[in-house]
Amino acid sequence: PETKLPKVGTTIFTVMSQLAVEHQAVNLGQGFPDFAVPPRLVEALDKAMRDGLNQYAPAHGLPALRMAIADKTARCYGHRPDPDAEITVTSGASEAIFDAIHAVVRPGDEVVVLDPCYDCYEPAIDLAGGVAVHVPLDPATFAIDWDAVAAAFTPRTRLLMVNTPHNPSGAMFDATDIERLTALLEGTGVLLLSDEVYEHIVFDGARHESILRHAALRERAFVVSSFGKTYHCTGWKVGYCVAPPALTAEFRKVHQYNTFCTFTPAQAAFAEMIQAEPGHYETLGAFYEVKRDRFREQLLTTKLKPLPVPGGYFQLVDYSAVSDLDDAAFCRWLTEEKGVAAIPLSPFYAVPPPGQRLARLCFAKNAATLDEAITRLQRL
Amino acid sequence: PETKLPKVGTTIFTVMSQLAVEHQAVNLGQGFPDFAVPPRLVEALDKAMRDGLNQYAPAHGLPALRMAIADKTARCYGHRPDPDAEITVTSGASEAIFDAIHAVVRPGDEVVVLDPCYDCYEPAIDLAGGVAVHVPLDPATFAIDWDAVAAAFTPRTRLLMVNTPHNPSGAMFDATDIERLTALLEGTGVLLLSDEVYEHIVFDGARHESILRHAALRERAFVVSSFGKTYHCTGWKVGYCVAPPALTAEFRKVHQYNTFCTFTPAQAAFAEMIQAEPGHYETLGAFYEVKRDRFREQLLTTKLKPLPVPGGYFQLVDYSAVSDLDDAAFCRWLTEEKGVAAIPLSPFYAVPPPGQRLARLCFAKNAATLDEAITRLQRL
Ligand SMILES: CSCCC(=O)C(=O)O
Ligand SMILES: CSCCC(=O)C(=O)O
Repeated sequence: PETKLPKVGTTIFTVMSQLAVEHQAVNLGQGFPDFAVPPRLVEALDKAMRDGLNQYAPAHGLPALRMAIADKTARCYGHRPDPDAEITVTSGASEAIFDAIHAVVRPGDEVVVLDPCYDCYEPAIDLAGGVAVHVPLDPATFAIDWDAVAAAFTPRTRLLMVNTPHNPSGAMFDATDIERLTALLEGTGVLLLSDEVYEHIVFDGARHESILRHAALRERAFVVSSFGKTYHCTGWKVGYCVAPPALTAEFRKVHQYNTFCTFTPAQAAFAEMIQAEPGHYETLGAFYEVKRDRFREQLLTTKLKPLPVPGGYFQLVDYSAVSDLDDAAFCRWLTEEKGVAAIPLSPFYAVPPPGQRLARLCFAKNAATLDEAITRLQRL
Repeated sequence: PETKLPKVGTTIFTVMSQLAVEHQAVNLGQGFPDFAVPPRLVEALDKAMRDGLNQYAPAHGLPALRMAIADKTARCYGHRPDPDAEITVTSGASEAIFDAIHAVVRPGDEVVVLDPCYDCYEPAIDLAGGVAVHVPLDPATFAIDWDAVAAAFTPRTRLLMVNTPHNPSGAMFDATDIERLTALLEGTGVLLLSDEVYEHIVFDGARHESILRHAALRERAFVVSSFGKTYHCTGWKVGYCVAPPALTAEFRKVHQYNTFCTFTPAQAAFAEMIQAEPGHYETLGAFYEVKRDRFREQLLTTKLKPLPVPGGYFQLVDYSAVSDLDDAAFCRWLTEEKGVAAIPLSPFYAVPPPGQRLARLCFAKNAATLDEAITRLQRL
């Protein structure tokens, strides 16, 4: 019989990480840091576990963690969501995105997504019975063409998905994007799902335009983030969703019957960490900016051309001076033959721009890892 | 606009646990142990975390854990599933059930469930666009009426969900159930989803009839279990699904875009624990049998009448000598006025049997906790 997800294969992140292992490549593909979790977090998790916090957390999340998220949101974005009615802890941002889609997308509903986008969006929309409507970003700058987004709206549009800082390009919303988005949604019933997992990795003094800063937007939005990118622990899988009470109620209906709740000791650890070291957020941009700048400078010694990186921990490179392979073939070749794993952009698109010659490299790595990668890339 | 899950409220486990906290009741409602996690598991998790296993695990689960699950399945049930193609680690059994349903239930497909059943089954079926078809178990013995199950099958039947040992009743499959089930499914395209999270909590020398023991059944089945009940850590949320390669492939399509992967250090800890202490499984039944027997004996000093408990860690009690309230009202009253939280059975049914006067008490507790509960129950 017909399968539920006929278009879906194995996610590109799994494919490239397996290939990296097989070929002993430096893995700059799948996005994860190779340095340590902050010591306070390790100690706090250990303590929570030894104190016996090992049974089900409340499905919505430990109260202390929801409180910490509310406080942190107030500090960062000038708005404090209600921890009881507006915040739900999930098993990573992935689950939060999946739950939000399943909470509101009904069979036949249209969901507008901006390509390139993270590869989990469309399968979740498909499973919910919705239809993904793809609007391309500018292939050179990854700016949003708001007129094209407006043109894609129909009476069946239920949800618009956005992502800032953007994976894979690093592009960030600016004040104009917020204005255009606000005008676009005003007076419609369209909901917003904002994926902000790279919220604290922003560069050059830019401000992260969280949807949570903007009253007219957050009243119709699921804002999703997580701790994996902020605290160097992508394998801890604690995320959350902030949404107004009516949306949170629908979100929780899905969440409670999906994972129900999330690893309790990590929730306790993040609650302590957020309150004890509020400065961590503010230093994260500078921490990664050093890595970005150093890596970009090194890339100039190779034939790969780095694109601008306003935020996040990914560096796009134009490889057209090296190869005329399409991006999937190029990344496979780079991994197998040159020992550096990268992620192609085509899996982030419904229809990849013809002739685009870009690959994504993760620079959330120790200097030694990046140095080794550069040595290999210099041989191209 | 119409919501996706109009029938769904807050799960009864959350409702009763909140009520228990508010009224300082002894919480025998939601099922979780109040004693410690095995020390080896705590140390192993701690070591994994300090060794730096804090980034994404492979989406299907750490290879060492899938290997341990395969070995353990071979030891317990005489069949070794392929760790690469047939085992997927999930964020608890809940996610595994949710993913399996979403992997195969298409809009309009029928899913046969046996009432009473765990309250996450039907919402997941609804979200997948399926239709739950409810077949009641015998209201006195909780035995399966296989003729009624057969009569419920239609050309649209896609999946049958079973659960042994059964929550809330503790009833277990016997050899006749396996025979009837095998005969029923033979020659049909109907798939099976078997929820076996209490697999190692079985009493009186009975044998757990895992679907994995039976070739004709496992070839069409998703078998779901978890470590929460086996290792006293319901808040660690590591589960898994064993299914033949073709079903696993569909399962993983959903899983990789739902949670993607699960807390890495706990996966490493379970891998070590399973291999280092294979005897833990065999002692678990005896460990809980002592608790069951003691609790049942104490209940005989109250007006509550205990039903048989073949497996699992729940004791059903008939409260008709105490109250004529329906079960939801009785459990609320018991929690608020008498200081003992219990779970009513009606949320486990589409149509609760009229006049059923049963409540569920969890005996996965220290003797002191159960003693205090009994003292309060003696006042009824
Ligand atoms: C969940 S694996 C992918 C990690 C990631 O966010 C990325 O590499 O884009
Ligand atoms: C996920 S909370 C419910 C725990 C449980 O399995 C039960 O009490 O039946």
